[in-house]
Amino acid sequence: MRRAITLAALGLGATSPNPVVGCVVLDASGEVVGEGWHQRAGGPHAEVNALRAAGDKARGGTALVTLEPCNHTGRTGPCAQALIDAGIARVVYAVGDPNPTATGGAQTLRTAGISVEAGLLEAAAAEGNAAWLTSVRLGRPHVTWKYAATLDGRIAAADGTSRWITSAESRADVHRLRAECDAVVVGSGTQRADDPHLAVRGIEGAVQPLRVVVDTNGTAVAPGARVLDAAAPTLIALADGVTPAYEAAVDAGAEARAQAAEIVRLPRAEGGLDIPTLLDVLHARGVRSVLLEGGPTLAGAFVAADAVDRVIAYLAPALLGAGPAALTGGGITTITEALRLDVSETVRIGPDLRVTATLVAKEH
Amino acid sequence: MRRAITLAALGLGATSPNPVVGCVVLDASGEVVGEGWHQRAGGPHAEVNALRAAGDKARGGTALVTLEPCNHTGRTGPCAQALIDAGIARVVYAVGDPNPTATGGAQTLRTAGISVEAGLLEAAAAEGNAAWLTSVRLGRPHVTWKYAATLDGRIAAADGTSRWITSAESRADVHRLRAECDAVVVGSGTQRADDPHLAVRGIEGAVQPLRVVVDTNGTAVAPGARVLDAAAPTLIALADGVTPAYEAAVDAGAEARAQAAEIVRLPRAEGGLDIPTLLDVLHARGVRSVLLEGGPTLAGAFVAADAVDRVIAYLAPALLGAGPAALTGGGITTITEALRLDVSETVRIGPDLRVTATLVAKEH
Ligand SMILES: NC(=O)c1ccc[n+]([C@@H]2O[C@H](COP(=O)([O-])OP(=O)(O)OC[C@H]3O[C@@H](n4cnc5c(N)ncnc54)[C@H](OP(=O)(O)O)[C@@H]3O)[C@@H](O)[C@H]2O)c1
Ligand SMILES: NC(=O)c1ccc[n+]([C@@H]2O[C@H](COP(=O)([O-])OP(=O)(O)OC[C@H]3O[C@@H](n4cnc5c(N)ncnc54)[C@H](OP(=O)(O)O)[C@@H]3O)[C@@H](O)[C@H]2O)c1
Repeated sequence: MRRAITLAALGLGATSPNPVVGCVVLDASGEVVGEGWHQRAGGPHAEVNALRAAGDKARGGTALVTLEPCNHTGRTGPCAQALIDAGIARVVYAVGDPNPTATGGAQTLRTAGISVEAGLLEAAAAEGNAAWLTSVRLGRPHVTWKYAATLDGRIAAADGTSRWITSAESRADVHRLRAECDAVVVGSGTQRADDPHLAVRGIEGAVQPLRVVVDTNGTAVAPGARVLDAAAPTLIALADGVTPAYEAAVDAGAEARAQAAEIVRLPRAEGGLDIPTLLDVLHARGVRSVLLEGGPTLAGAFVAADAVDRVIAYLAPALLGAGPAALTGGGITTITEALRLDVSETVRIGPDLRVTATLVAKEH
Repeated sequence: MRRAITLAALGLGATSPNPVVGCVVLDASGEVVGEGWHQRAGGPHAEVNALRAAGDKARGGTALVTLEPCNHTGRTGPCAQALIDAGIARVVYAVGDPNPTATGGAQTLRTAGISVEAGLLEAAAAEGNAAWLTSVRLGRPHVTWKYAATLDGRIAAADGTSRWITSAESRADVHRLRAECDAVVVGSGTQRADDPHLAVRGIEGAVQPLRVVVDTNGTAVAPGARVLDAAAPTLIALADGVTPAYEAAVDAGAEARAQAAEIVRLPRAEGGLDIPTLLDVLHARGVRSVLLEGGPTLAGAFVAADAVDRVIAYLAPALLGAGPAALTGGGITTITEALRLDVSETVRIGPDLRVTATLVAKEH
């Protein structure tokens, strides 16, 4: 199952709106005869890939799958049936399928006389599928807020300079994060200050995320902005009735670039646009995981909207003592209201520290 | 030598103004026959303790010492001579003695016909003696700034509440830090807000540090303040000519408690008292290591005075988005001036993260 979980992770960033799934097929004597993972939405599921690799050797064997095999006939046919057809004798899966349209796979398998076990390495497999499971449970994409700050929590010096707080290694690592998620989101402040590119660079075969700029009044994305290039799709969120400034630019070059960006209009809310509506729109487009790349104001709005599931902090071992803080706003006024997280990982990235922390599940 | 370094660390907090030193004596066949460390200032040195434990078996043997054996006759006689008298054939030490009054031990040993090697595990041994080596090099105590903050660098919520940002485990760990240093320093802001006790609790045999409150106008330490109890010595630093408010209190109880505190008067400087003079005064009293426990303003003054050698951050996996920052002031205005550190350790303490980082040596 560990191997199946590793295989599943290979699909991160490419399978939405589907989960990542990994599958290992053993023959009747317990030898590994096939491996597979769900490689991209619309492509064959993990079980089908693994069964193909196993061929006839699957007969009488065991399939280890990270997620309960699906029961529904989507673009690719139900996996439960494929396992039955291949003559598999035993299926072990880690996480039950919470998706109401896919569930029932275990029952179908049992009815066909296959022995079925659930829950093996469930926690590890669920972590690997956190984004998708969150999106099924909450009906909105899973959100990772990523930021780079000094040890004392500053994202820039007093004069606004910030290149580079963290190391080249940390910046390269961010491209991996982008590649693993479906959309990258920034606010108009960051758009204006940094003109970020937001596409994945340096990772072969990566599926580019949707670049999203939250630009209430359409004034931050200027003609020639780097997000308007063709490296990745771009969505600009504006308030209802607003026309983006960059469209007013009349030269042909700017118009051609503008083709790359799509516009969505959202209702206004305190501070800018309504964050839950933004997430609804993204979810409806199949986005299951969002990497929120800031800045501090927009991150505060996500915190206030209860829409941060995971935090990845790149902490540079440096002190500034002045300058903007990593997070602003969020509506927390007293210590008991602090957003409590669990540290799930701490890794050195070059000279920096990468701290991953996930939201402590709240009582419902 | 690893064992000698471990032994040396047992003396942390109790040996100032002397270094911590560990010594392992092997007999002629290479068996460990004696171990010792410098346990407290005025007590026998590590070599003497180890030689005592070894007795006659030291003859023809090897002494492994973390620091070059001293040559001077202080309160306890030179160790070089003790090694010669014990008939040691070979001495291996890690770090050369930079102290001009103690140096020359290696030469004395060589002259007596003992084989001497230097530099074994030098970096590890130097790290264990960082406080003392810094104090010899700079003529001021080594300063560790310790703080507890959220992942986003806040030490309290917007309404000022901060109990408890970090866990009970982290708070217990701070007592260990206090026990390892000679003085604990806080500013008048922290004194006023928290009425801290600053003594070591829960560590058997710990030598209490000197509690130091930097209280320019003598108004923060109130009658009955916890630092005025008898648990540890206390020094209150005031501006020249100031009389502390707590002395004005006339009831006998307060007066009795006031006995516990000593007063030192320092020149004023920007922001309050002159930090270099404070460090001079502490150094003159034999303080070699200072634990600066805040708050953010006083820490900023230490940063501005180039007087932070090590930072220990207890980071709680929580977000606040508002509230005071861990470090304020320090005079850094642009990113290239950021105080750069090296992360030397990251450890989980309960749910929290303890990050230790040391100043990147500056060009001289
Ligand atoms: N170190 C890092 O990790 C990092 C990451 C990103 C950015 N940064 C830095 O952060 C700075 C920019 O930060 P920022 O806080 O000014 O910008 P920001 O968070 O990127 O954008 C904030 C803006 O987003 C718009 N917005 C739209 N809907 C919102 C809502 N519901 N709530 C709040 N804001 C909403 C608002 O402007 P409109 O309503 O006018 O559109 C708001 O002013 C730059 O200096 C950048 O370099 C650092
Ligand atoms: N989480 C943590 O790790 C931690 C640790 C400590 C404190 N705290 C919190 O920090 C808050 C207090 O912080 P704070 O910044 O107000 O107080 P602080 O740093 O403890 O004290 C600052 C005061 O020290 C005095 N001072 C004397 N010489 C100075 C100099 N050279 N430079 C600067 N100041 C000098 C100044 O007042 P005078 O000149 O009037 O004496 C100054 O206002 C409290 O809420 C406390 O709970 C948190």
